[in-house]
Amino acid sequence: MRRWFGTRASALTWRDRFERIRANKIFETLVIAIIIVSALLVGAKTYPETGRFHYWLLAMDMAVTVFFLVEIVIRMAAEKRLRDFFKQGWNVFDFLIVTASLVPLGGSDMVLLARLLRIFRVLRLVSMIPELRMLMAALIKSIPRMGYVALLMFIIFYIYAAIGSFLFVDVDDYLWGNIATAMLTLFRIATFEDWTDIMYATQEAYAWSWIYYLTFIFLTAFIFLNMMIGIVLDVMQKESAAIDRENGEGEEAELQDLRHDVRQLSGQIARLEASLQRQDDDHR
Amino acid sequence: MRRWFGTRASALTWRDRFERIRANKIFETLVIAIIIVSALLVGAKTYPETGRFHYWLLAMDMAVTVFFLVEIVIRMAAEKRLRDFFKQGWNVFDFLIVTASLVPLGGSDMVLLARLLRIFRVLRLVSMIPELRMLMAALIKSIPRMGYVALLMFIIFYIYAAIGSFLFVDVDDYLWGNIATAMLTLFRIATFEDWTDIMYATQEAYAWSWIYYLTFIFLTAFIFLNMMIGIVLDVMQKESAAIDRENGEGEEAELQDLRHDVRQLSGQIARLEASLQRQDDDHR
Amino acid sequence: MRRWFGTRASALTWRDRFERIRANKIFETLVIAIIIVSALLVGAKTYPETGRFHYWLLAMDMAVTVFFLVEIVIRMAAEKRLRDFFKQGWNVFDFLIVTASLVPLGGSDMVLLARLLRIFRVLRLVSMIPELRMLMAALIKSIPRMGYVALLMFIIFYIYAAIGSFLFVDVDDYLWGNIATAMLTLFRIATFEDWTDIMYATQEAYAWSWIYYLTFIFLTAFIFLNMMIGIVLDVMQKESAAIDRENGEGEEAELQDLRHDVRQLSGQIARLEASLQRQDDDHR
Amino acid sequence: MRRWFGTRASALTWRDRFERIRANKIFETLVIAIIIVSALLVGAKTYPETGRFHYWLLAMDMAVTVFFLVEIVIRMAAEKRLRDFFKQGWNVFDFLIVTASLVPLGGSDMVLLARLLRIFRVLRLVSMIPELRMLMAALIKSIPRMGYVALLMFIIFYIYAAIGSFLFVDVDDYLWGNIATAMLTLFRIATFEDWTDIMYATQEAYAWSWIYYLTFIFLTAFIFLNMMIGIVLDVMQKESAAIDRENGEGEEAELQDLRHDVRQLSGQIARLEASLQRQDDDHR
Repeated sequence: MRRWFGTRASALTWRDRFERIRANKIFETLVIAIIIVSALLVGAKTYPETGRFHYWLLAMDMAVTVFFLVEIVIRMAAEKRLRDFFKQGWNVFDFLIVTASLVPLGGSDMVLLARLLRIFRVLRLVSMIPELRMLMAALIKSIPRMGYVALLMFIIFYIYAAIGSFLFVDVDDYLWGNIATAMLTLFRIATFEDWTDIMYATQEAYAWSWIYYLTFIFLTAFIFLNMMIGIVLDVMQKESAAIDRENGEGEEAELQDLRHDVRQLSGQIARLEASLQRQDDDHR
Repeated sequence: MRRWFGTRASALTWRDRFERIRANKIFETLVIAIIIVSALLVGAKTYPETGRFHYWLLAMDMAVTVFFLVEIVIRMAAEKRLRDFFKQGWNVFDFLIVTASLVPLGGSDMVLLARLLRIFRVLRLVSMIPELRMLMAALIKSIPRMGYVALLMFIIFYIYAAIGSFLFVDVDDYLWGNIATAMLTLFRIATFEDWTDIMYATQEAYAWSWIYYLTFIFLTAFIFLNMMIGIVLDVMQKESAAIDRENGEGEEAELQDLRHDVRQLSGQIARLEASLQRQDDDHR
Repeated sequence: MRRWFGTRASALTWRDRFERIRANKIFETLVIAIIIVSALLVGAKTYPETGRFHYWLLAMDMAVTVFFLVEIVIRMAAEKRLRDFFKQGWNVFDFLIVTASLVPLGGSDMVLLARLLRIFRVLRLVSMIPELRMLMAALIKSIPRMGYVALLMFIIFYIYAAIGSFLFVDVDDYLWGNIATAMLTLFRIATFEDWTDIMYATQEAYAWSWIYYLTFIFLTAFIFLNMMIGIVLDVMQKESAAIDRENGEGEEAELQDLRHDVRQLSGQIARLEASLQRQDDDHR
Repeated sequence: MRRWFGTRASALTWRDRFERIRANKIFETLVIAIIIVSALLVGAKTYPETGRFHYWLLAMDMAVTVFFLVEIVIRMAAEKRLRDFFKQGWNVFDFLIVTASLVPLGGSDMVLLARLLRIFRVLRLVSMIPELRMLMAALIKSIPRMGYVALLMFIIFYIYAAIGSFLFVDVDDYLWGNIATAMLTLFRIATFEDWTDIMYATQEAYAWSWIYYLTFIFLTAFIFLNMMIGIVLDVMQKESAAIDRENGEGEEAELQDLRHDVRQLSGQIARLEASLQRQDDDHR
């Protein structure tokens, strides 16, 4: 503590002090530790045996809430302007999670909601560990790449679900009752989860219904496979573009330098030729 | 509307007007919206609760049908010659879907067919959204690449199905009754769906039948894996060919230019040598 | 037929005639058609309804057998020396399949064997269609690449099976009775087929047995994943080696030619220098 | 034996002799054979029918233990200094496995432990066969690459498990009793093992619970897919870096040599020019 509030403290503004705390490695580790404690508290409450430690858990939970509040205030105070704090997505994310658990809640339904909100504190680990933040950024970046494939998949699901709920509603109302239920059933079939039971049931009414299931499985598997290839191709194109850019600095530049040298040589010889010519003219 | 049929309309032919409508961004969005409405109508009918809105749904369905008819007529009229319209695959596809839902149908079986045909209108989304059209084109292009692998897979299924229906027909007639049923059972095994139940049943009659199942699973998994590799390899070859082509414009061309420079240099020196020789001869 | 045995037949040896037949496109298509007929015959026999066509099927089966015999004799006679025929793996394969179905068989067990042998005739499709032959060659080439991974996988299965059959034999004798049964059960777990049922049963006796299952699943999935990466890496290395070789003909060769030119230039200048020197000496 | 302890034996130290034995190909093959025998012994004991060979098995087991002890002593004695032996990870691994099976064990629980320890001798195959050792090294190298993805996956499992055990504990105490049980259930769902049964049960209490399952399946599948892409990308970057390094020796070096030649040429011409200048000056 001396290091932060010590002898030269009079020369430091409060913002500088907060900035030092925020940048401090020990402080970061402490925050991560508290997040893990918070996660363990959430986990502990799911064990009924922890009922007798109820007041302890409640006290620790409050302590964690207060700590998170203090931490976020420090990080906000460390910024030059408050609006800089909210410019970074992860800060907004942290702010929402911390403030959400502060809202006073009453009633039994609200208690459940309060509990659920506390779970999402675990996600703060992602915002605290840089490697996880990078991983998340990569995940988010790959979403648009899969958007249209997902739309195509949805159209296929929708068409098969409509057909399924028209044809098979009398066979099994629970599975094919309406288009939404049928889509859930089709998702089940796409995960191969007891799909033959569903098929054997409908085959008794419609002997040719295996065509419905096999075409659906082939279509979804085929599109999934192509999505995979598409992504690999995409990754490779970016990679080869990066190689080209690098080569531009290496080999291509080398070649251009070489060409420049050869041109200088040509100039040198031209000068030589001219001087020889002059020498020749002088003689005559 | 003024924009299309307004002041200068007298100078425009009808075809020009239709072409303007077709190319209009708002019109395209409207068509996509109507397709989605059409899809929702199909979905809504699968809920029995919508029975009391029956006449509303019927009216909307008719409106959609009429709209699609008008839209396709506009797109046909916008072409210089009608045959140009049918030259594009997606137009033929749209035409078939729209006309199919126009055919008057009677009888209860026909009602079902009419309903099914209406579902396929959702596929018009694919023909309307360029990204989905490109995706479909990519999917269709990758079919031949998988053709012979599918044939090989089929041969393996056929052989195993023949063996299975010879050996196991007495164990379970429902699963191994004939070669077609056996192939369906093998497809079930390939998706790992309750395959051990089938194996345990046949193992009681033939203790060594686990060999049949394990070799089948390894063969299909092995071929599938190799198909994946084949596709990745294929994609890579195309990629590296593209890189080579690009490089041809970059590095290779640079090298050839350089060589040309060096040859010019050689000519320059040869000329210098000749003039020196001449100078030397003059002296003597 | 005229084309083969016609006017100039007297000038042709029998071997030439057989070679012509073998190379004839129509003959090849006929062989493929007969193989498909043979496959359909095998399939047809699995339907009990075909019992009344029994004699027809038997006759056709004989016809197919005779045709295959004639075909292989033609192909053998077309070779210069008989031993050339057996030098090709696919010929040996065809010969074995054709002769195996010729062996006269008696007794009910033998009938089954004869039937099974007839199924493998379908595999002749692979030897007849060049694309399938190439595919098979690629599959066979990739076997050694997977050999050591398979050995490692086997070691892991063996260790887990030994542990499983020691610990869980009292829980379920049918699944964990001995090391062979335990390995089959582990293969079932690796395919995720009702693996939780097995786990829930052993967890009642050994509460911590979930560790056994989870480590096993992670290990096998992990090794499988790495095998996939290994194969992709392998394919890429071969690919990049191929690119290098190609480049050797393109860019590298170009560079060496260029260097050769520069050296000639150097020689040219050296000669020039020498002649200038001589000229200088003459003057003095 | 003559080769090792023969005529010139007096000139050899004991260490040299042990080193010869260790490096001997036959000795290596013998060790591998004994490891396989040891593995078969472990497997044989799981068959109750082998009870009457009990003493034989025990004797062989002892023989194997003694052999392994002798083998490891030879390998230790072959090193110049004992500490060199323990510097290699695989030697430590072998040493631990061999010594662990030497510890005298009493009591029924201990017998089980002794048996389990004997199983791990099979792992010595990995340390004996170089290809397997390389494969293991590759597997271990790829662990860190997956570390953060595993952490992210764990966080997602933890959050879903907390939500699941809060909401669904009243539906099924066995599956959602506490956070640990819920995580196991979620792992089951991630492997698609009868996941719809779990969903159908909770859907009766919470009709919207399908959202919980579908988002979980999409998230885990999505992250898994991205991990795959990440690994392929990683492998490709290493590959292209290797190509660059190789090219550095090939093309880049060639280019630099060429540039050196051109510079020498320039020097040559400069000398020529100077001598010409001198010649010119002499004349005047």
